[in-house]
Amino acid sequence: MPSSSNHRTARTQLPLAVTRGDPSGIGQEIALKAWLALHEDPAAPAFFVIGNPDDLAALAAQFALPVPIVTVSAPKEAVKHFAEALPVVALPDRRHGRLGEPVLEDASQTIRAIEIAADFIRAGEAGGMVTNPISKEVLQRAGFSHPGHTEFLGELARRIFGAQSPQPVMLLWSEALAVVPATIHVPLTQVPQLLTRELLIDTGRVVAHDFATRFGIESPRLAFTGLNPHAGESGHMGNEEIDIIAPAIAELRKQGIDARGPFPADTLFHQTARKNYDVAIGMYHDQALIPIKTLAFDSGVNVTLGLPFVRTSPDHGTAFDIAADGKADPTSLIAALHLAKRLTQSPRA
Amino acid sequence: MPSSSNHRTARTQLPLAVTRGDPSGIGQEIALKAWLALHEDPAAPAFFVIGNPDDLAALAAQFALPVPIVTVSAPKEAVKHFAEALPVVALPDRRHGRLGEPVLEDASQTIRAIEIAADFIRAGEAGGMVTNPISKEVLQRAGFSHPGHTEFLGELARRIFGAQSPQPVMLLWSEALAVVPATIHVPLTQVPQLLTRELLIDTGRVVAHDFATRFGIESPRLAFTGLNPHAGESGHMGNEEIDIIAPAIAELRKQGIDARGPFPADTLFHQTARKNYDVAIGMYHDQALIPIKTLAFDSGVNVTLGLPFVRTSPDHGTAFDIAADGKADPTSLIAALHLAKRLTQSPRA
Repeated sequence: MPSSSNHRTARTQLPLAVTRGDPSGIGQEIALKAWLALHEDPAAPAFFVIGNPDDLAALAAQFALPVPIVTVSAPKEAVKHFAEALPVVALPDRRHGRLGEPVLEDASQTIRAIEIAADFIRAGEAGGMVTNPISKEVLQRAGFSHPGHTEFLGELARRIFGAQSPQPVMLLWSEALAVVPATIHVPLTQVPQLLTRELLIDTGRVVAHDFATRFGIESPRLAFTGLNPHAGESGHMGNEEIDIIAPAIAELRKQGIDARGPFPADTLFHQTARKNYDVAIGMYHDQALIPIKTLAFDSGVNVTLGLPFVRTSPDHGTAFDIAADGKADPTSLIAALHLAKRLTQSPRA
Repeated sequence: MPSSSNHRTARTQLPLAVTRGDPSGIGQEIALKAWLALHEDPAAPAFFVIGNPDDLAALAAQFALPVPIVTVSAPKEAVKHFAEALPVVALPDRRHGRLGEPVLEDASQTIRAIEIAADFIRAGEAGGMVTNPISKEVLQRAGFSHPGHTEFLGELARRIFGAQSPQPVMLLWSEALAVVPATIHVPLTQVPQLLTRELLIDTGRVVAHDFATRFGIESPRLAFTGLNPHAGESGHMGNEEIDIIAPAIAELRKQGIDARGPFPADTLFHQTARKNYDVAIGMYHDQALIPIKTLAFDSGVNVTLGLPFVRTSPDHGTAFDIAADGKADPTSLIAALHLAKRLTQSPRA
């Protein structure tokens, strides 16, 4: 019986920890829907949610989602139950905010879920974490000191995993295209001064390392964009390509990394061009995110590279505006689960 | 016989003037190939090339393209001959440069071809012009005083058409997406200081006017991007949206133009989002060109709006590197011809 054999193989993988995200957002709804989509497929990743079981049961009832909930105390139980019910590692409090109306009282458990996920991974009980969206604004008003998920994960890498100097790098991944923005959530005017050789070299090293170890690509090809139109046209439209980007690429190549460019960004993302690299490194947010969101709006996955553990996330926000409707699309979370499974299974990881 | 009737209808349209572009580039090759693709289709646009007939015949022989050449003295003859041969309005000199090796001696006739096209349109003998790629570098070394095609067309609008203050605006058009970059060939560091309300209002007015008159869209929907990530998130990442872009949109709306935004650029170009506007206005080169070149690399068309005549162009350069190979792809030129025909036929033009 091949299916039973597959079943056994797949289910002996460590389960993935899914954090609930802001409970007034769509995170728990898409977790329920992801379980519906995956629980009968023995090759799909088994996962458990870190959230409140009563919240999840109530939400399933409210949106008429036929999802039995089973509370588990340890991730290994999650694997046993996954085919029959959605396993939940319990957070004690039920949510205080309504759907679509986040409140500060929920912030501490939202954060706690991420710490619990890291603890399980550190203990060898979970394969990796898939984090549902949080609201930076809510968390900061509640006194959370990190600008976002990524920076907090850097802290957990130090505190829980003892990593010396983790360098979290944001990757947006889809079947069609993988991109890394070298600078992220900063005003466009600040981008040129933030672009340094060191930043690009550090980014390139993390990307090359993780594409080799986690994605299993032996010698990953990194394509760097230019900063300026036409990558500056040999200095006719800006000098950052000559002064910063090209020297960083040269240094990476000296270190044995297959770094290429800088290439004009506008012609780097069409179907033929995409065959020439495994990951593109853009200089700023829109340059990297426009192409992937244009090509793979619903199925993009956010991955944090440079950490001692696997972390993926759906590539969208809390979506408070539609959280009460029951119509949220779980496609990106499902893609994030599949990718997290792939990354935890890499033979080189 | 409907086909004969179509034939008569189509061929009574004014023919389009195709300029040769730099004769060491791929312009003449793709013109020959475009004729092969279109001459048997009575609904396709008839055109003539402004170039040297002997150059074109020699090129056809060299690349084994079965294209008879007929020299015509006036565009109206072009329509008569188009089904049987490629009509050419003759430039006197044969090209001096080899394929792939441009020379300054060819520059004056390359420019002259564009002036001749404008003269024919002004005289009511050609419907519009489709310009093949020129090399800015070659022309500037030859003493040409304009930064590129677009600025030169502005001068011709004044000199030949008597336009008071033409405002050439570059549009990239494809079936999937139409985009206008508000700033174009400048270093990224200069973009913020070049973005003014006046620039955006002027650009929006030209775009709205030409989409109504030439594209025949009664009340075109203009979607403006923000400059910063997430369109600045209400001032958290830059203030240009609040200080410049939103006020420009408000002013355009006051003038009766359906201007919208500013929208986060990364989520503006996926399939569902594109249904909500007719044309997107990006703040700088890569922001506008990345999505269209990602989606429609081979079939994009460059259009100059804001002129008293129709001008389209293939969305690629001279391609000197492949000009001797005979393998250039005429797809974009063919799309430019089809679009020029559509724009010259608009009932409101």
